[in-house]
Amino acid sequence: MSLNDLFDPDSIAVIGASKTPGKLGNDAMANAKEFDGPVYPVNPSGDGSVYGYDFVESVADTDADLALCCVPGPVTPEVIEECGEAGVGAAVVFAGGFAEAGGQGIELQADVQSIAEEYDIAVLGPNTAGHIIPHRHLFSSFVPGFDEIDSGDVAIAAQSGGVGVTATFQLDREGYGTAGMYGLGNRVNTDFDEVIPMLDDDSEVDAIALHIEGTDQIDSVIEAVEAASTPVVALKSGNEMEEFVQAHTAAPIQESERYERPFTNGGAVMADSLTELLDASRVLAQCPQADGPNVGLVTAQAGPGIMMADYLDERGVNFPELTEDTRERLDDILPGFTYDRNPVDTGRPMPEFGDVIDAVGRDDNVDIVLVYEIFEHSLGYPVEELEQLTADIDKPVVFTVAGPDAALSDDRDRMEDLGVATFDSPERGAYAASVLAETSR
Amino acid sequence: MSLNDLFDPDSIAVIGASKTPGKLGNDAMANAKEFDGPVYPVNPSGDGSVYGYDFVESVADTDADLALCCVPGPVTPEVIEECGEAGVGAAVVFAGGFAEAGGQGIELQADVQSIAEEYDIAVLGPNTAGHIIPHRHLFSSFVPGFDEIDSGDVAIAAQSGGVGVTATFQLDREGYGTAGMYGLGNRVNTDFDEVIPMLDDDSEVDAIALHIEGTDQIDSVIEAVEAASTPVVALKSGNEMEEFVQAHTAAPIQESERYERPFTNGGAVMADSLTELLDASRVLAQCPQADGPNVGLVTAQAGPGIMMADYLDERGVNFPELTEDTRERLDDILPGFTYDRNPVDTGRPMPEFGDVIDAVGRDDNVDIVLVYEIFEHSLGYPVEELEQLTADIDKPVVFTVAGPDAALSDDRDRMEDLGVATFDSPERGAYAASVLAETSR
Repeated sequence: MSLNDLFDPDSIAVIGASKTPGKLGNDAMANAKEFDGPVYPVNPSGDGSVYGYDFVESVADTDADLALCCVPGPVTPEVIEECGEAGVGAAVVFAGGFAEAGGQGIELQADVQSIAEEYDIAVLGPNTAGHIIPHRHLFSSFVPGFDEIDSGDVAIAAQSGGVGVTATFQLDREGYGTAGMYGLGNRVNTDFDEVIPMLDDDSEVDAIALHIEGTDQIDSVIEAVEAASTPVVALKSGNEMEEFVQAHTAAPIQESERYERPFTNGGAVMADSLTELLDASRVLAQCPQADGPNVGLVTAQAGPGIMMADYLDERGVNFPELTEDTRERLDDILPGFTYDRNPVDTGRPMPEFGDVIDAVGRDDNVDIVLVYEIFEHSLGYPVEELEQLTADIDKPVVFTVAGPDAALSDDRDRMEDLGVATFDSPERGAYAASVLAETSR
Repeated sequence: MSLNDLFDPDSIAVIGASKTPGKLGNDAMANAKEFDGPVYPVNPSGDGSVYGYDFVESVADTDADLALCCVPGPVTPEVIEECGEAGVGAAVVFAGGFAEAGGQGIELQADVQSIAEEYDIAVLGPNTAGHIIPHRHLFSSFVPGFDEIDSGDVAIAAQSGGVGVTATFQLDREGYGTAGMYGLGNRVNTDFDEVIPMLDDDSEVDAIALHIEGTDQIDSVIEAVEAASTPVVALKSGNEMEEFVQAHTAAPIQESERYERPFTNGGAVMADSLTELLDASRVLAQCPQADGPNVGLVTAQAGPGIMMADYLDERGVNFPELTEDTRERLDDILPGFTYDRNPVDTGRPMPEFGDVIDAVGRDDNVDIVLVYEIFEHSLGYPVEELEQLTADIDKPVVFTVAGPDAALSDDRDRMEDLGVATFDSPERGAYAASVLAETSR
């Protein structure tokens, strides 16, 4: 089975497309209409057009590679069979009521699975919110607003569509897009072990975020994580409440411990919350890998700096001594520092702050540069100095921002463009640095 | 010593006021100009006016209650003496170079302290970003942008001005104001034990957030926390890096443990990060105290719900069984639930979602209502149902939002107006519920 038609289709059929606002088949069309290639709304009782696309009676009348199935669970096997006969290579099944519901749902899912196997169709779901790939203008989901999600460098593969949707909107709210969101749902034949290698091959994907509740394919998922050259971050959910978890995506109950050691040995990071999952993915996507775990911390305000130092210290992260050269340079830049060891604190923003970061960043003992500065209008952030520094050194730089949000956003964007990862609270900046230390060479 | 003139002055002198943009005395005037009463820019070499206020030569020429000292450290004792002779009751000292710098700075601070004592002046600082009380239009700080901070219900008392500023802007970024931010700095005679009772007496303050690095007044601080009837949340910082901490606000090194047990026994909450400090304060300010620790969790998407259940379960929070009555009512509302125990999951947003929350919220076994729902345009959030529910029951309700930010903000604001606390990620909503459980009767 190939996932090609799921990830890079030439044309799309929306089966069960509808003109009625609020209906699944209308919401799916609202997103699918963004696609650059042909889009076919399929509905035998469809009349005229929807979003400018003429209804067709049957998927057999199309050359679609990918079918979005906006039909109730019980008719899904029949629809998948029609897709197979029409030469469709991939299908997204939104409906629930399959294995997660138990009883007849289990048989229904088995039917879908065997038909998909017969026709060699990659099925995403059932019981999924679908997937989006903004850089391909592919939004195969019923979630309103998804057509406005930008491209980004983090891809999300979520067992729960709800988690994938929440994560996507959280990235969007903070000004980031996604390199793809995949809701896996019941994983009839498209599981983490199929999706991870495909994301690893996509040059637009710079980090892979996984939300896992449980899968029978655990061994091949671990192999896929080990084999990936793209950074992987995973959040394991569903450690308790067995019945609730099974009623959700029909996942087997698996303790986090079954994933934790093999994943981290394979180079992946385990996150403890959705925000950690996204922040770890973002910093790994954005920054070069660190050569070692040693953090140089530069702060313009000691109080938040102390909080960050506490955070990193608790996680065993090292603040190396700075070299004699660096300390001499620091003394030249700014005699009478508030604190000139590591952390280096200037006590307040000042025109020399960029030079101070530069000095610490070029120190041979420092592998990871972590900065904290509250924005001041009159100074701005030291973007020019960071441009020079990041051009000269191949070290990750994390900049923790604070201050009036609207005022700092331009400088923040410019830093992001340089490959400086930015975070907006002390604990998030410190967490990002701890992830870089954990994944260093 | 009274803090009256610090907290509710009738008039303000800005000593060292300046017309030059970027200078401390100009930034302080830019904020002070928002005050409703007289504002006196004091500068013997001042010419004409600044922000519409005429310069005066000396603080002796004013009837100021509160003086903002925008002067270098070494002249501060002299300025405080002039304030004392002019009848000023409170002074904010922004300058650094006092006890935190060691050496002569220690003597300088002792001088300020004895003069303040002689004249009975409440001194905030030295080495502080000042304080703001938006509901009194009092912005006695040099931080640009502070004049635009709105009123809110959480007051912040931060040992580090930088942490206070960061916290204030974090609340602002998320759409909230503050009931006051106080940067305590070196605490020459205004320490946590003086500020807490004052905040406790302010009817605008519904929760008190403390950022503590260390204080010699620890016993009276603990007493003040125990005595407060307003909820208190504390973040203890500076457990490591002794030299760095001492160079900051001249704080004694104190392990978190010295605060943790007495504070929690006294009814306060200990937070582990700045975001937790603000979220805990916000939920305690917003919601009624819970009668017990039992959480009823209602979700429209199971995946994030499972994450929240994991989070709460790890913290020992209880999901009680629902009563027979509630389960019957749930079955009437929605036959064929995805999951109808507690958590109660509808699997997707739907018109009945508000009724489901209502049923769980009225259950006698439930003390705290926690909701998760991704926003959908066509449905909105169940504001009407929540209005009725919150009018009828005196239980805290936490609503965790997700989705396209701009679309949901109106409904979010309307829920906040009802006293429903809202949070925008699964772990933040779950954390807020855990704080309510911890502080229940």
